[in-house]
Amino acid sequence: MAAIIVLFTDFGLAGPYIGQVKTVLHQIAPGVPVIDLFADLPAAKPQPAAYLLAAYGGWFPPGTVILAIVDPGVGGKRAAVIVQADSRWYVGPDNGLFEIVTRRADQARSWEIPAPAEAISASFHGRDLFAPVAGLLARGDPLAGRLRPEGILRHPDWPDDLAEIVYIDRYGNAMTGLRAALIPDGARLAAAGRGLG
Amino acid sequence: MAAIIVLFTDFGLAGPYIGQVKTVLHQIAPGVPVIDLFADLPAAKPQPAAYLLAAYGGWFPPGTVILAIVDPGVGGKRAAVIVQADSRWYVGPDNGLFEIVTRRADQARSWEIPAPAEAISASFHGRDLFAPVAGLLARGDPLAGRLRPEGILRHPDWPDDLAEIVYIDRYGNAMTGLRAALIPDGARLAAAGRGLG
Amino acid sequence: MAAIIVLFTDFGLAGPYIGQVKTVLHQIAPGVPVIDLFADLPAAKPQPAAYLLAAYGGWFPPGTVILAIVDPGVGGKRAAVIVQADSRWYVGPDNGLFEIVTRRADQARSWEIPAPAEAISASFHGRDLFAPVAGLLARGDPLAGRLRPEGILRHPDWPDDLAEIVYIDRYGNAMTGLRAALIPDGARLAAAGRGLG
Repeated sequence: MAAIIVLFTDFGLAGPYIGQVKTVLHQIAPGVPVIDLFADLPAAKPQPAAYLLAAYGGWFPPGTVILAIVDPGVGGKRAAVIVQADSRWYVGPDNGLFEIVTRRADQARSWEIPAPAEAISASFHGRDLFAPVAGLLARGDPLAGRLRPEGILRHPDWPDDLAEIVYIDRYGNAMTGLRAALIPDGARLAAAGRGLG
Repeated sequence: MAAIIVLFTDFGLAGPYIGQVKTVLHQIAPGVPVIDLFADLPAAKPQPAAYLLAAYGGWFPPGTVILAIVDPGVGGKRAAVIVQADSRWYVGPDNGLFEIVTRRADQARSWEIPAPAEAISASFHGRDLFAPVAGLLARGDPLAGRLRPEGILRHPDWPDDLAEIVYIDRYGNAMTGLRAALIPDGARLAAAGRGLG
Repeated sequence: MAAIIVLFTDFGLAGPYIGQVKTVLHQIAPGVPVIDLFADLPAAKPQPAAYLLAAYGGWFPPGTVILAIVDPGVGGKRAAVIVQADSRWYVGPDNGLFEIVTRRADQARSWEIPAPAEAISASFHGRDLFAPVAGLLARGDPLAGRLRPEGILRHPDWPDDLAEIVYIDRYGNAMTGLRAALIPDGARLAAAGRGLG
């Protein structure tokens, strides 16, 4: 099974950003399918996205490359990383987005992506920095980056399960940062005093 | 001309559901193009969707597989079906969604999709039940299912043409469940006392 | 590098129009990637779209075919055109949409697309007229059309740079029709009395 690339962003599908990212991916890794998973994550909020990524990422086949970008610090000093968690690859900003995926993985390693040789846009690392790295991974190029020590946590203060609503889907279903398997039988959830489910 | 798969759902494009369905389709039928037709059908309302499907389905080339899912009864006892109407295939829940396509077809047959051998999600048959069937059809596998007697109607009470607005597009154009060819010349439409068109 | 086709429209992604256009493109130019750049341009307003097209079109690789449709005059007497601006192709209505691309190009030529031999929809030239032309260009067919004299401007009254907001993205960033390179260092923008950026 050839690789697929999965997009997990707050860019919006209809505006100009996803299309530019897909153009870069196509140029670097032609023929590799690119799947839109989320394009409407809560804008500029890595924390809820981190729990959604942990809930959804593990469903994809081994070898999948997930390009995950919710990056309010773009152009600042946050690092850019590749994370391998179990058998999948994640590429994006080192701002906590991969915190929960990493904690829940049986095996996880990460690499820091070196700064590109040529000047790139300060505001669109998704297109100019992260997409090229994801494309190279998906086409099987050797990984370029510096392996980081294990155990780096960006947000040790974030709980393993987050008792908040992190996404509301088109039907009005509210998703939380809690793992269903850890909720006791018969438990009832409430938000703002109102019962859920 | 190889098959194409067309998605006709109320899932929303930007959230997580269409992407998971496309991943399944790609795994089963790699290389078959998947086209988004509607992802924003009126949520959980098979009736307006049935008229839209009849209006849009017949435009696609012979052999097209239309994965049509508006399924408020997911996880309940409604059957899962494959419908062949003229030269196209339709896959989805047997809740009336294919009622109007079937009535308007010159030739139509349907098959009941057997329950899958392994346990599947009770809430996401689009991904776990319908998408695999659509993928197998699109790649040309022999059809697995029980042919049903002809003349089954789920909703004999639904009219052949529905004098209601079933969809409003991005420009504000209101679509009805009426066939334009059956409206007399010079007729005027009105909704809520206001003239249309 | 094979061609890609880029969609730049006000059709909306989730409704029925983009899917029909992609089906036509796939039938004519199977295997050519189709990229959604904008599907949510200001509806029926060619002027803001013209400045966005000039800002975004030139980023794409040489040979790219940009299918650009914001066409309030569909079915009327406006011409249909192919524009070659520097190394890219543009296909769409001759209503000013290509005005700014043409002015800013080092080299530009345009051809009038002949009326199709068979009757087509009066309301969906995107699918029935422009998409087939874009598909043929993308697969490398010889260009069919009448070369037009140079220097045709549809809207000489439109300024080279437009001091208006032409698009607001998902993060709330407001885009103008001004080229950033022409704005003096230290300039401040304001809209409705409120400072921008």
